[in-house]
Amino acid sequence: MGSLGPYQRKHKIGVVGSGNWGTAIAKIIAENAASNSDIFEEKVEMWVFEENVEITKDSPHYSSSLQGTQKLTEVINHTNENVKYLPGIRLPANLHANPSLEDAVKDCTLLVFNLPHQFILKSCESIKGKILPYARGISCIKGVDVNEEGISLFSETIGRILGIYCGALSGANIANEVAKEKWSETTVAYDPPHMDSKAPTPQRSPSSSQVELVQFQHKDTSGQMSKTKLQALPSDYPPIDHVTLKALFHRPYFHVRVIHDVAGTSISGALKNVVALAAGWVEGMGWGDNAKAAVMRVGLLEMVRFGDTFFGATINQATFTEESAGVADLITSCSGGRNFRSAKHSVERNLPIEEIEKLELNGQSLQGTLTAHDVNKFLKKQGMEEQFPLFTAVYRILEGRMQVSEIPGYIER
Amino acid sequence: MGSLGPYQRKHKIGVVGSGNWGTAIAKIIAENAASNSDIFEEKVEMWVFEENVEITKDSPHYSSSLQGTQKLTEVINHTNENVKYLPGIRLPANLHANPSLEDAVKDCTLLVFNLPHQFILKSCESIKGKILPYARGISCIKGVDVNEEGISLFSETIGRILGIYCGALSGANIANEVAKEKWSETTVAYDPPHMDSKAPTPQRSPSSSQVELVQFQHKDTSGQMSKTKLQALPSDYPPIDHVTLKALFHRPYFHVRVIHDVAGTSISGALKNVVALAAGWVEGMGWGDNAKAAVMRVGLLEMVRFGDTFFGATINQATFTEESAGVADLITSCSGGRNFRSAKHSVERNLPIEEIEKLELNGQSLQGTLTAHDVNKFLKKQGMEEQFPLFTAVYRILEGRMQVSEIPGYIER
Repeated sequence: MGSLGPYQRKHKIGVVGSGNWGTAIAKIIAENAASNSDIFEEKVEMWVFEENVEITKDSPHYSSSLQGTQKLTEVINHTNENVKYLPGIRLPANLHANPSLEDAVKDCTLLVFNLPHQFILKSCESIKGKILPYARGISCIKGVDVNEEGISLFSETIGRILGIYCGALSGANIANEVAKEKWSETTVAYDPPHMDSKAPTPQRSPSSSQVELVQFQHKDTSGQMSKTKLQALPSDYPPIDHVTLKALFHRPYFHVRVIHDVAGTSISGALKNVVALAAGWVEGMGWGDNAKAAVMRVGLLEMVRFGDTFFGATINQATFTEESAGVADLITSCSGGRNFRSAKHSVERNLPIEEIEKLELNGQSLQGTLTAHDVNKFLKKQGMEEQFPLFTAVYRILEGRMQVSEIPGYIER
Repeated sequence: MGSLGPYQRKHKIGVVGSGNWGTAIAKIIAENAASNSDIFEEKVEMWVFEENVEITKDSPHYSSSLQGTQKLTEVINHTNENVKYLPGIRLPANLHANPSLEDAVKDCTLLVFNLPHQFILKSCESIKGKILPYARGISCIKGVDVNEEGISLFSETIGRILGIYCGALSGANIANEVAKEKWSETTVAYDPPHMDSKAPTPQRSPSSSQVELVQFQHKDTSGQMSKTKLQALPSDYPPIDHVTLKALFHRPYFHVRVIHDVAGTSISGALKNVVALAAGWVEGMGWGDNAKAAVMRVGLLEMVRFGDTFFGATINQATFTEESAGVADLITSCSGGRNFRSAKHSVERNLPIEEIEKLELNGQSLQGTLTAHDVNKFLKKQGMEEQFPLFTAVYRILEGRMQVSEIPGYIER
């Protein structure tokens, strides 16, 4: 089972969320926990929002002991498969589906958040004060929370509520492809206040287990400052640094680069959906590959400009142009992502995109249309619609105030 | 017909080349010459390598006066269509097909080169000393000339032979889409020695028509320096600057950005074909959109690194990540370009790429395979194969020394 090395304790990992992407990430983490048993506890907890599933004679796992109405967690733990949200994918035996959020995160030093963003607040509130005070988080939730007042990163929201530091994971990662172990890359962004960020050394030696309290200053673009008391990780744990995070997420089929720019990583993941709508419309119009590439180029420029303008020095332009969370995720999203496809179909079938949403998405909402509205509200308040002509055009087309055919002329200015 | 403004003379434009892309660009130029008659002579010359075409009863232009064996130039001038290389596209009446290269470029102040690169040397040699000594050129020829000794830009080769300054045009421009006036963007790069580069002023006033001779230093990466005597444009012509070049190339359906970085523009156009091979292989393997985006991301990084390493301060990284000649052309080439498609088919049909070339390309050669070999020869000589793992992997796969399945592991290092 591996040695503890110089550390007496191992990290316990809890995954909060078990949808399509949540389960795919939990699978990766459980695989890595098993193969890095010197730093991680083997058993990985995954919180599953409990629901009933029907196991019929046609279900692949039907048996005399598994039939009729069953609890999803029990089916997952019995079959090692999330039959509801990631069917057909074998999960590691050391991944444990847990219907209690509180129990799933208990004693975890590493919490990985991967659930639809509308559930973040409620889930975090319900475990506030019930987690290890020195835990650290990684948010795999795509996007940012933009409103008229400012832009908050989901990682910051999670960190603020729970009083912990939280980084982000984002990349060109269509969940089903990752689950099937098709090769892809991702970006993990992690840049805690200085107390956590000692450079990894080949020979890590534990020092005395003192607990420090430092002021962790949180600032979002609304200028709001909040202070979180951040607790240092006891020194009998391996440090939570870029090396440990790579060990947690990297697989032969899932290549990880760990960087510092959490804001750039998160903003890319949100804004690329707005660009994907424009790319879908252009493709739907039959304008060809040149035109689609042009829209993507302008979109990438506006993503960079958005970061520069509203996050300034805290963001690294290279995140957009060099990392999986930036240009690669943009490319994937403009090739076959949901926002792209829905926009394309809305032009081809001459239906409003909300109709396509209803017809094709099973009640789920498009992230791109929500983000386009939020971003526009924010840009309008700043008086900066003109500086982001593609984002503004997307919003106006959604509002019915502009035609897709006007995009080239409008973004040229 | 417009006024001459403050200038007594207008620019005469000659297009050297009349293939698919050559004719599409000549069409654009002739349209702009007609609508900017204050700075350009309306009649635009296009050199056509003369050949015979057969006009049969099935040909769209068949008539009693146009049948049987005809000269291509005469058919073009009679029908306003390049029936051989751009069939179905109406050309402006002010575009004149000329079978004599020497006559086509005579008295031209602006020469636009758009012919297969194997014809550059011979064509330039044949008009050396027969053009206006103060002419300026733009090369639309994709790629660079890489060999063990160094990298030469085609624009530099042209400029050196003819003793003129030559810039470049490159972008996400599939010729047939541009010819059909589907919206696209392009990059024009033009950065002549200081004598030519006065900032455009709203009120341009001609000064006395003195001819200056300055030393124009040419340097390629082999360290070779050559000196070209560059003659100043007489001041009774409008200056050839970014404003004039935009007037020459920009159309409502063909959006032009004029920049200074000729090397970056040219190198992008060459290296993206190497990346497109890798993207085609990955797509052929069925690895999905994540994997294709990953290969493109790594390819873009290596393009930037190549520019930084071998051209240093003379190149602008933003050309790769922000301009049509960079990231947009990469995207288009990895969507449906010839190199991408051939590589994809070679995996799908389990045939060497040379077989696909023979079967599908009508005797034309793939640019990507040639460039991959040339780039590798150069990198090997520098001892830098390891720093460009994707370019190296592409070369080794072409050589049969590596499998496509080894790409992820190899480029990760």
